[in-house]
Amino acid sequence: MPDNVAAVLHGKGDLRVGPHPMPELGLRDVLVEVRSVGVCGSDVHYYEHGRIGDYVVTDPLVLGHESAGVIVDRGALADRHPVGQRVALEPGVPCGRCRECRHGRYNLCPDIEFFATPPVNGALARYVAIHQDFAHPVPDELSDDAAALIEPLSVAIWANRKAGTTVGSRVLVTGAGPIGVLAAQVARAAGAGHVAIVDVNADRLTRAAQLGVDQTVDARDRSDLGAIAPDILIECTGVAPVVRAGIHALRPGGTAVLVGMGADPEMPLPVARIQGRELTVTGTFRYANTYPDAIALAASGRVPLDEIVGARLPLEQAEAALRMGHTDPSVLKTVVIVTQPG
Amino acid sequence: MPDNVAAVLHGKGDLRVGPHPMPELGLRDVLVEVRSVGVCGSDVHYYEHGRIGDYVVTDPLVLGHESAGVIVDRGALADRHPVGQRVALEPGVPCGRCRECRHGRYNLCPDIEFFATPPVNGALARYVAIHQDFAHPVPDELSDDAAALIEPLSVAIWANRKAGTTVGSRVLVTGAGPIGVLAAQVARAAGAGHVAIVDVNADRLTRAAQLGVDQTVDARDRSDLGAIAPDILIECTGVAPVVRAGIHALRPGGTAVLVGMGADPEMPLPVARIQGRELTVTGTFRYANTYPDAIALAASGRVPLDEIVGARLPLEQAEAALRMGHTDPSVLKTVVIVTQPG
Amino acid sequence: MPDNVAAVLHGKGDLRVGPHPMPELGLRDVLVEVRSVGVCGSDVHYYEHGRIGDYVVTDPLVLGHESAGVIVDRGALADRHPVGQRVALEPGVPCGRCRECRHGRYNLCPDIEFFATPPVNGALARYVAIHQDFAHPVPDELSDDAAALIEPLSVAIWANRKAGTTVGSRVLVTGAGPIGVLAAQVARAAGAGHVAIVDVNADRLTRAAQLGVDQTVDARDRSDLGAIAPDILIECTGVAPVVRAGIHALRPGGTAVLVGMGADPEMPLPVARIQGRELTVTGTFRYANTYPDAIALAASGRVPLDEIVGARLPLEQAEAALRMGHTDPSVLKTVVIVTQPG
Amino acid sequence: MPDNVAAVLHGKGDLRVGPHPMPELGLRDVLVEVRSVGVCGSDVHYYEHGRIGDYVVTDPLVLGHESAGVIVDRGALADRHPVGQRVALEPGVPCGRCRECRHGRYNLCPDIEFFATPPVNGALARYVAIHQDFAHPVPDELSDDAAALIEPLSVAIWANRKAGTTVGSRVLVTGAGPIGVLAAQVARAAGAGHVAIVDVNADRLTRAAQLGVDQTVDARDRSDLGAIAPDILIECTGVAPVVRAGIHALRPGGTAVLVGMGADPEMPLPVARIQGRELTVTGTFRYANTYPDAIALAASGRVPLDEIVGARLPLEQAEAALRMGHTDPSVLKTVVIVTQPG
Repeated sequence: MPDNVAAVLHGKGDLRVGPHPMPELGLRDVLVEVRSVGVCGSDVHYYEHGRIGDYVVTDPLVLGHESAGVIVDRGALADRHPVGQRVALEPGVPCGRCRECRHGRYNLCPDIEFFATPPVNGALARYVAIHQDFAHPVPDELSDDAAALIEPLSVAIWANRKAGTTVGSRVLVTGAGPIGVLAAQVARAAGAGHVAIVDVNADRLTRAAQLGVDQTVDARDRSDLGAIAPDILIECTGVAPVVRAGIHALRPGGTAVLVGMGADPEMPLPVARIQGRELTVTGTFRYANTYPDAIALAASGRVPLDEIVGARLPLEQAEAALRMGHTDPSVLKTVVIVTQPG
Repeated sequence: MPDNVAAVLHGKGDLRVGPHPMPELGLRDVLVEVRSVGVCGSDVHYYEHGRIGDYVVTDPLVLGHESAGVIVDRGALADRHPVGQRVALEPGVPCGRCRECRHGRYNLCPDIEFFATPPVNGALARYVAIHQDFAHPVPDELSDDAAALIEPLSVAIWANRKAGTTVGSRVLVTGAGPIGVLAAQVARAAGAGHVAIVDVNADRLTRAAQLGVDQTVDARDRSDLGAIAPDILIECTGVAPVVRAGIHALRPGGTAVLVGMGADPEMPLPVARIQGRELTVTGTFRYANTYPDAIALAASGRVPLDEIVGARLPLEQAEAALRMGHTDPSVLKTVVIVTQPG
Repeated sequence: MPDNVAAVLHGKGDLRVGPHPMPELGLRDVLVEVRSVGVCGSDVHYYEHGRIGDYVVTDPLVLGHESAGVIVDRGALADRHPVGQRVALEPGVPCGRCRECRHGRYNLCPDIEFFATPPVNGALARYVAIHQDFAHPVPDELSDDAAALIEPLSVAIWANRKAGTTVGSRVLVTGAGPIGVLAAQVARAAGAGHVAIVDVNADRLTRAAQLGVDQTVDARDRSDLGAIAPDILIECTGVAPVVRAGIHALRPGGTAVLVGMGADPEMPLPVARIQGRELTVTGTFRYANTYPDAIALAASGRVPLDEIVGARLPLEQAEAALRMGHTDPSVLKTVVIVTQPG
Repeated sequence: MPDNVAAVLHGKGDLRVGPHPMPELGLRDVLVEVRSVGVCGSDVHYYEHGRIGDYVVTDPLVLGHESAGVIVDRGALADRHPVGQRVALEPGVPCGRCRECRHGRYNLCPDIEFFATPPVNGALARYVAIHQDFAHPVPDELSDDAAALIEPLSVAIWANRKAGTTVGSRVLVTGAGPIGVLAAQVARAAGAGHVAIVDVNADRLTRAAQLGVDQTVDARDRSDLGAIAPDILIECTGVAPVVRAGIHALRPGGTAVLVGMGADPEMPLPVARIQGRELTVTGTFRYANTYPDAIALAASGRVPLDEIVGARLPLEQAEAALRMGHTDPSVLKTVVIVTQPG
């Protein structure tokens, strides 16, 4: 068995790439040689702050939860996929028994084990082990990077599913970062009649337009959002005035899905509008039952995931990958190349 | 044709009961001799403030929108109900053509004509005319008062419908006024496994317990709401700390329905909780498609509407009826007796 | 550890009550001393035919899947319930990982292990072991028999959930056997505005009326079902002309839930009516996520389960219990008393 | 005011194009100069049989209900659209007041007035009048033919909406006629992960593949449908063995939408499968609330309607257009050009 190597966060701002114990392989687990790992804002947040809210990095933690690789070994009862199968890794493994799991909301399982969430190690490592049912086969149409980005695509699909995006929906996305752009592309792929995206950054808006969004809006013009007449708001900024303006713009019976996390646990919302127009406001926490759908969507070319990758760095430069947002803010998504095929 | 008489609001605090023009009878309208009219908080608010938000009483306005009576005449094409039929009046008549109407959300029709909402006159009158499809026959099991109170019962049913109350639901109602109590009773009638109600007023809580609520909670103990583990919050106070505590108490995947109107158009809500537990927050504006269901429910005895009537006054004393909240706060619902049967 | 005893089907018509191996206790299992077991039509069918469709009794099989008892031992990791806790046993334990489980449809799990379904033994035994999450605590309000009958009540709740029964629904139940009667009672408890039940047997109709059904209809008058104007059909006979008449009677947009199993895998259905009125036809296979809701409903007294019990026999007379349908057809539900409290 | 001309069916096989009275213009109606009218199978059926089921042509009837044109006059209260506006005509105008209308199911309104359904005249005429709310503005991206074909596109959208097609859905369409092909294209546009289509005609399957369907299946191989593992069946043949094979192929929890009308009002369906897999079977009758969504979808280019037009004939040759199915079966859709722009 080869040696393992991982990018481990030892504390705020202290990331070290080095040898790491091989993961234990459960009976129904597969051992995956990781190829590509996307860098998510939460990885960056752990790196910069040593915590996200109540989740505090007290022991060394392997970062990374957007990952794909190749199965190289299997537990004794893991017979679903052959060795050699390329897979996208769904990073949260729930208990399968609790109230939330039994209702199909396994993302809300209180005992879920989720990559790179203390104390569970993540996927910025040469080898990871995962229950076979959370390793999803990917077809040749998807690159390793695209397979890793099935994770943020899942976030975008889940947001649209909560929103009920369907043929003809008018969708407003606030925030043109990676999740916002993917949410807009998924909305389009789900048949939305009109997709508008709002941001403060002109470059991001330009890119969103290139990626197929119907309308871009400068966030400073948010008083005009009502003219868009959206049925759906997919909110990806967490910034209070943007959230409020977005909700206020919704047509009667519309739905707002809060994806972006704000700085504060509370936020003033336009409740009189929510009542008077019978709006629905909900939020998302990760996703459930999205991976096979996300893979089918991406493999068909309708959401070209490789196009949002702006930088690719080897595992040894994981720290540089985490700092990319400062180095080059024009990079929408950075991926870490852990191993190379063949 | 006899003369009409009505309780007309001429301005803030200026209610006069006197002769009133007979209503015009449209082709598909029925003319109804009004029997009983419930007094709603909105009637009181118009009386005390001369306005509700953007709705301002500039011309004399007949108050009252919770009403029942007997059909005494019919327009030329109004053949659905016979003269002599006792009916509960659904007080809002929508356009039937717009986007909202076509989607079945006719309560959100921008052109709806709703009783006692400027400039549309209400039902505190001897005679009112209404489209025959909004005059709903009531069976003998319902008293005239109960028939009038099909309107607030509709509000309560609508709140539960939005909440998705069903067999086994754990329901938390905040506010034990007439709407809160009815919402709790409807929750129970819809199969809820547990119904708790919160209020600051011990008398109201006692009465709620008598009316079948499983658990009563003093609002000052609202930090304990989490122990109730509700799936559903039906919020009938509009008071910010109560709303927040109620939402915070919800189980993962739960739903909050905001019925009570607050003083301000915005209110701080626990968005991190909404996201982390994937809660749904929505609001209600009146109701749609509830009248036949409300009549069936009340007629079966499962929500005994007469029991919430605490005072009955004749039309001549309409002003006293509007002041009853001050005269005797223990009265949950006041009805105005406009005419007496035969 | 005491000895076990069970009612074992060795083949068609060959039921023997005698010593039986103690069940193995998994890490998260509880060992339950069984108190009461309801006799279901499927138990009788296995006894009389040695099979149900593709499920064939090839090896000795303990019958019984409607059961309740008391926890007397726990596996090493089973810490949810104390020893001494009285529980209703949800008889199917799914894998928790497959596509169906992950979507919350665990009743459709292809790997579910369900009591008294070959080759999984059932609960007509002094001791059974089950995963702790499928042993549901019952309050004192429920008798042991009622706790066992949470199982058929779950079938009835699931049917109503699939039907979308809610406040005001007009419900037609076809078949006044135990499931039909329970489905009608649940419909009522879920707020149905009108519940009618159809059967060929006058005694059953009389009893259904006593149990709170609004209207009883002789099945030979099924041409009149349209006058009932149901929104919902809960079909509990599996008899083709009844199914067709029931579907035909539905109002536009109505829903038929097929619960009763017919003799043939195919049945002529009124497809033109399904299209012209945009009806929905679905079926049920057991249930999911019903036990806590069923326990709350029964404990509140809204569905008095003890009232449908017509005969109680000790375990030694299990065969007589299975023959009760022939001995005394007026018995709606027979229960087997396995052990007595204290 | 110019003279009107129309294609009038006087009885089975007796179609005459000639002068026709100008339509009356209601207060909220618009007068439309018709440009293009698609020929539907129902038009052909009326022409060949003089009836469709209970709808019998007893008086002369103008055919055609897939139509678009330009507003040339307006009733006194019709102020929504300007004269000169190009519009697609939604051919059914419901009452707006009945139970079905109030629930948003206006396609099931018993009093709906639907083009070319006795005794309501259709759109194969130079001039037609329609309520302004059923004349939907179309953008320049849509040709006149495409605007007329918003009608069958609505059928396809409605089928997918009933099916719940969404991102990742696996969809099986049976029948590669115009509705089947459009349903498959809409499924794809709604994000379906895989769309397969079944037909007996190799030419139709080839064209479906060209129009973007993922997989084509010869209907004689329908025993293989299970390998497709569909979540959704959109049935567009009405042929019993195809319907049954399609339903049988569905995955657990799947949905079948019956769009194609069969010869008989009843059809044997696999009820044991519907129960064992908890499938949902429903049907469609026209559509509701689809026109704006269909226009947005078609205008975006995601369903290129012009590509299914195989023949274009002037109004004078309306009879030849109705016979096109016999003349050239390879024509998927025939349109009648009633007037030419400017």
